[in-house]
Amino acid sequence: MQEVDTIISGGRILTSDEADSIIHDGSIAIDGNTVAGVGTSEEIEAQFLGRRIIGARDCLVMPGLINGHTHAAMTCFRGLADDMELMDWLNNYIFPAEARNVDPELAYWGSALACAEMIQSGTTTFCDMYLFEDETAQVARQAGMRCLLGEVIFDFPSPSTKTPEEGLAYTRMLIEKWTDDPLVNIVVEPHALYTCSPAVIKKAKALADEYNLPFAIHLLENRGEAQQLEERFGMKATRFLQEMGCLDERFIAFHCVCMDEEDMKIFADHGCKVVHNPESNMKLASGIAPVAGMLEHGIVVGLGTDGCASNNNLDMFDEMGTAARLAKVERLDPTVLPAKTVTGMATRDGARVLGMGDSVGSLKRGMRADIIMIDLNKPHLTPLYDEYSHIVYAAGGSDVKTVIIDGRIVMEDRQLLTIDEDDVMARVREIAERVKKSLEA
Amino acid sequence: MQEVDTIISGGRILTSDEADSIIHDGSIAIDGNTVAGVGTSEEIEAQFLGRRIIGARDCLVMPGLINGHTHAAMTCFRGLADDMELMDWLNNYIFPAEARNVDPELAYWGSALACAEMIQSGTTTFCDMYLFEDETAQVARQAGMRCLLGEVIFDFPSPSTKTPEEGLAYTRMLIEKWTDDPLVNIVVEPHALYTCSPAVIKKAKALADEYNLPFAIHLLENRGEAQQLEERFGMKATRFLQEMGCLDERFIAFHCVCMDEEDMKIFADHGCKVVHNPESNMKLASGIAPVAGMLEHGIVVGLGTDGCASNNNLDMFDEMGTAARLAKVERLDPTVLPAKTVTGMATRDGARVLGMGDSVGSLKRGMRADIIMIDLNKPHLTPLYDEYSHIVYAAGGSDVKTVIIDGRIVMEDRQLLTIDEDDVMARVREIAERVKKSLEA
Repeated sequence: MQEVDTIISGGRILTSDEADSIIHDGSIAIDGNTVAGVGTSEEIEAQFLGRRIIGARDCLVMPGLINGHTHAAMTCFRGLADDMELMDWLNNYIFPAEARNVDPELAYWGSALACAEMIQSGTTTFCDMYLFEDETAQVARQAGMRCLLGEVIFDFPSPSTKTPEEGLAYTRMLIEKWTDDPLVNIVVEPHALYTCSPAVIKKAKALADEYNLPFAIHLLENRGEAQQLEERFGMKATRFLQEMGCLDERFIAFHCVCMDEEDMKIFADHGCKVVHNPESNMKLASGIAPVAGMLEHGIVVGLGTDGCASNNNLDMFDEMGTAARLAKVERLDPTVLPAKTVTGMATRDGARVLGMGDSVGSLKRGMRADIIMIDLNKPHLTPLYDEYSHIVYAAGGSDVKTVIIDGRIVMEDRQLLTIDEDDVMARVREIAERVKKSLEA
Repeated sequence: MQEVDTIISGGRILTSDEADSIIHDGSIAIDGNTVAGVGTSEEIEAQFLGRRIIGARDCLVMPGLINGHTHAAMTCFRGLADDMELMDWLNNYIFPAEARNVDPELAYWGSALACAEMIQSGTTTFCDMYLFEDETAQVARQAGMRCLLGEVIFDFPSPSTKTPEEGLAYTRMLIEKWTDDPLVNIVVEPHALYTCSPAVIKKAKALADEYNLPFAIHLLENRGEAQQLEERFGMKATRFLQEMGCLDERFIAFHCVCMDEEDMKIFADHGCKVVHNPESNMKLASGIAPVAGMLEHGIVVGLGTDGCASNNNLDMFDEMGTAARLAKVERLDPTVLPAKTVTGMATRDGARVLGMGDSVGSLKRGMRADIIMIDLNKPHLTPLYDEYSHIVYAAGGSDVKTVIIDGRIVMEDRQLLTIDEDDVMARVREIAERVKKSLEA
């Protein structure tokens, strides 16, 4: 009989393991930050003695969701401007709002609000790209969230760094500061091929290689970008990245809306990863990423919300539903991206995209204990014929009841335990007043 | 000083009136089933004395949402089968499940579950088409929901009626039974042009005309249907309906995915109404309805969830977000279907589609008091720059706190007051067991 910290007892367990096992009356033993055992309640009771028991009656217990791409601090700009031409939106709202307001304080409180929202909607790991990411790292640490984050690198000055060299230096600082942290992981993140010169891209890739870290970039988000890059490089952007030596298993591309068969083949050949952001792509009228095609090519695809300026929330359940439906209407084929596949994209495959496939994204012995419990005892989740169907097509973030990350309970019965949400909301409301005034000027 | 039953006090009021007025510190006086006044809190306090005060601090107060097309009792089949070819899904799951299980009991409890879910997600009026609709009418009456419902009419036998004549007789019974009911309204609903002969369509239209009622039908849901009808009639389906004398301001078409410019012109010329069901159309891979084009033609378009077999929930907030995003990616234009327009589709225009524009869909003096209160004090609704943006792009049904229909509080602080949700869920779970077994045979 092994004594463990916690047993989640008597729930319906969706493991998201390779066999997609579901255990109808199951339990999970957690010791420290690790899953000590997953099995039927009978098996777990026979093997483990829990110092604390969390009852999971009427709950679906599954791996925490993995938001593969966001800009956490941009919660401060949620709903600031919508329904506009991209250049109007960027040049008259988002860019000036950022230039006049983004500082470490905004980065801190915006990220805190994002962490509150993400935990409340069942996300346990997020991949972030923005400014002053050391603030985001500190917030995530305090909130107890797992993350992979990087300072965005541009050719031009940002509120955080004056030159791309400063951006690279900031990234190196992050790497050295957060090495060996159990929750915070670092990624090297040049913004895009249209905002970073090839020389900067190469330096960024060299930095990622030096530390064996992932390298992530916005890529082929819309037709305008794809055409511009092809004209500038005299070849497809994917081919150009390949020739620069950027493409490998640690290469993560955000969006990839405008990918053709050749692009997908290049990505598949190099083991590159993709994060699909369907709601943002729709709202900005970027287009529909050919996700069904990517999966046919064997590319590992995760899901992301993108930032709150273009989504406008961080609910991965919404994103799963939209991903599943959008792929069907793109192909006019209702069989593509079935619910089980999409659940995998938000869990197991999402973890593989971020290079964390060995530690999170599925529930099995030895994995980190990142676990969410969904309250199934609700009208809109009744009756229950199929768990995956409910996750993707019926549930929402507000159905998440309890969240455990790295073995620590961060939300219990909808109460956040690591974030003072009232304080965070008050701070962000103050920042928003400042943002509003800055645009009136 | 006028004494009234209730004052909703001190909230942010989104009226959805013709001017799209928003009142930042506003109140609403309700007397009986009617809005007695809407204005600033100061104005309302000076004019009215409320026997009951509902505080609306931190709340957005708006008209209840109007679900323009659903099949309420199909909650019993939620998630029974997804991600399949249409004919596989219909012939091997939905049709046999219906043939073997749909009876008045299923219609009653399935509709009760739908009402619980709809109230919890802010819907106050729904338009329903299914079998044994007298059960649905009774449930809606008990739940205190406003509805427009009709028995589905087919050429062939259904679990409810053996012939189209029986379907018409059932409809006439509904009309006579529910005349003058304050909540239940009746519509004549032949299923579709591919399941009803022209003779039946004409009889149905004559019945609608006899009582001056709306006439509603599934129309042009996918390319297969559009082609089949054009071949059969030797002309476009819209033209055929026009020649049969069906098209007028009381004509409501569900779906209209495959509409071209000529179809839209015909609809606009006759004042026909459309209900757009984007999530169902995506999930069934039907296609993308040209909603932006319909609006340009001046057609009044509402929003619907369709039934739970193809959605799989009844959350109109989800539907608004999807409608706004889908139109943008269809046109590759981020300016179409802005949030304010989409909010209108789910409120004011939705009411006009159902022929209820004079009584519900906006908050102003003399309208029926169908009102929802949304709790804004949540991380994912912070900060607040624009109310419409939050409704369409950030909020979900679970943010609805209190619901009033026809002046009666049916949900308060998320507690349903007119439905025993635990009992309803238990009944539907029993029915689902029966459904599952019926398909194993």
